[in-house]
Amino acid sequence: MNKYKVAVVGATGVVGRTILKVLEEKNLPVSEYCLFASKNSAGNKLKFNNKEYIVQELTENSFDSGFDFAIFSAGGDIAKKFAPIAVERGCVVVDNSSAFRMDKDVPLVVPEVNKDELKNHKGIIANPNCSTIQAVLVLAPLNEAYKIKRIVYSTYQAVSGAGKKGILDLENGIKQYYSNTDGNNEYELQKFPYPIFNNCLPHIDVFLENGYTKEEEKMINETRKILGRSKLPITATAVRVPVFNCHGESINIEFNDIYEINDAIEVLKSAPGVVIKDDLENIEYPLPTEVSGQNDVYVGRIRRDFSLKSGLNLWVVGDNIRKGAATNAVQIVEELMKM
Amino acid sequence: MNKYKVAVVGATGVVGRTILKVLEEKNLPVSEYCLFASKNSAGNKLKFNNKEYIVQELTENSFDSGFDFAIFSAGGDIAKKFAPIAVERGCVVVDNSSAFRMDKDVPLVVPEVNKDELKNHKGIIANPNCSTIQAVLVLAPLNEAYKIKRIVYSTYQAVSGAGKKGILDLENGIKQYYSNTDGNNEYELQKFPYPIFNNCLPHIDVFLENGYTKEEEKMINETRKILGRSKLPITATAVRVPVFNCHGESINIEFNDIYEINDAIEVLKSAPGVVIKDDLENIEYPLPTEVSGQNDVYVGRIRRDFSLKSGLNLWVVGDNIRKGAATNAVQIVEELMKM
Repeated sequence: MNKYKVAVVGATGVVGRTILKVLEEKNLPVSEYCLFASKNSAGNKLKFNNKEYIVQELTENSFDSGFDFAIFSAGGDIAKKFAPIAVERGCVVVDNSSAFRMDKDVPLVVPEVNKDELKNHKGIIANPNCSTIQAVLVLAPLNEAYKIKRIVYSTYQAVSGAGKKGILDLENGIKQYYSNTDGNNEYELQKFPYPIFNNCLPHIDVFLENGYTKEEEKMINETRKILGRSKLPITATAVRVPVFNCHGESINIEFNDIYEINDAIEVLKSAPGVVIKDDLENIEYPLPTEVSGQNDVYVGRIRRDFSLKSGLNLWVVGDNIRKGAATNAVQIVEELMKM
Repeated sequence: MNKYKVAVVGATGVVGRTILKVLEEKNLPVSEYCLFASKNSAGNKLKFNNKEYIVQELTENSFDSGFDFAIFSAGGDIAKKFAPIAVERGCVVVDNSSAFRMDKDVPLVVPEVNKDELKNHKGIIANPNCSTIQAVLVLAPLNEAYKIKRIVYSTYQAVSGAGKKGILDLENGIKQYYSNTDGNNEYELQKFPYPIFNNCLPHIDVFLENGYTKEEEKMINETRKILGRSKLPITATAVRVPVFNCHGESINIEFNDIYEINDAIEVLKSAPGVVIKDDLENIEYPLPTEVSGQNDVYVGRIRRDFSLKSGLNLWVVGDNIRKGAATNAVQIVEELMKM
């Protein structure tokens, strides 16, 4: 069996640390790992696979020593600068940022849905947006069965998706609420334009000319690319909620074909990476607190939309840091190792 | 000018106390107020209009002394038992519960939308569900202008809608998170089946046979009744979020008629009870923390839904205890006093 040399770029971030956890759990055939981060984080020590790793500064020479795979989770600017360098040195890059996702030469892959796309890569594979990954796991088999006609997304997104500073904003808000007696205990926001504690912010990523956020546009475009339906009508409203981890999604689907609700449930039951939690008698449905730490995506509240000839409503919850980022990226590397 | 005698039933609850605040602010032509509650709360003292009121126990004889109006906010069972008694004694009842809302003899009124319905009352007027009130304020003028073809609701609902025990569940969750060091600091849930802190519960009110919750069904049926569109296609997903006060709603609308986005904004600008907060350049949109305490409903993220020939997406936030309950009920009484 081949043994590979793997780089993790952005190893100290929220997603980077979870990538290390998932790599530990998967135990891939790897001979050597190297952990990279920015200058600020270089020198940090991370425990990984029962060894202490010293995080190295990412430089233009980082890939000279010959890596087989690199998982980037360091934002779009770093990816744009360093992924091509890595590829030039013979390394295959799985990138978590949005930098290459809509590039027609770059496969955008959720292995359970479209791992065949990996065959066409030219050195870079893009990991989709977290909200998109958990949605398409559920949508792809339904699209296969009944051909989707239109999708309406409304999201309930956790602060972990905004990194450490997003988590800090929620933690500081909780502390202020709990300890505040005189109302003068203001804290400085690190990430969001408004307090996320006790609030819902209909604003994720930047606003675009057309009134949508980049997050909403990503969900629309990436869903189309992954489902291979470039003109599929989709709309989205993305909202940040005061939850630490796991995105929730209210998904409304219109189908071309007529369906039976029990058949749709069977379709979802056999969907890889998807767990059904939908037992109303026992008050069971997917919850962020329960899905946190899971690699699978959970679906519940599965019910016909009576406002359409052939419509379906779903409530989908996924760990945005695991399956929405780290787990999916590691799965892509795992698939590439098998090829 | 006539002076009226007014009863407030359920005066000690979350909505009841806010009804007293709104009545203070409105200064209606009232000669006498009486505050009623259950046996448990009777004897409590409430400060109201700079006077101390002793809360009286609600009994079958409570309405014998001749009231002109009663605002009930004490749940469906109390309303079903006592509202007919009050009406028999010549009192007009505005009821906040769902007990009479879908009764064809009972007007379901949001004054800015359909106050003419008040002319047809037979003693009882129903105050709509909180989520419905804030939605129809925005939907009614758009329906008038472009005829709505279909609505998809996804809600982000605050714990105050579940009363004191709902608020307590969120407070206890915050306290536990803040103070917990050993993980053994469990608190007992008062209202929700799962912790609402750090969570989203796709479950408001009870589950029905068809897989929907009663809250979702209320939104569908009450929207139809208030808009006078008994067969309007509507679907809904109602979710509880960890926010103390103010419901958010992602509303997706399909119109029959073609529209221009600037015209739709003008329609909303002239909608009574509605405030537009939608300035993306200055990062302004409706937020629960900012709308809390307001009587108006706020709308933002107004943008065309490009997945339809004529579609629109909105983000609507309303204070579910004020306009969603107390303010609307008091406005109904105010309108009745003018008739």
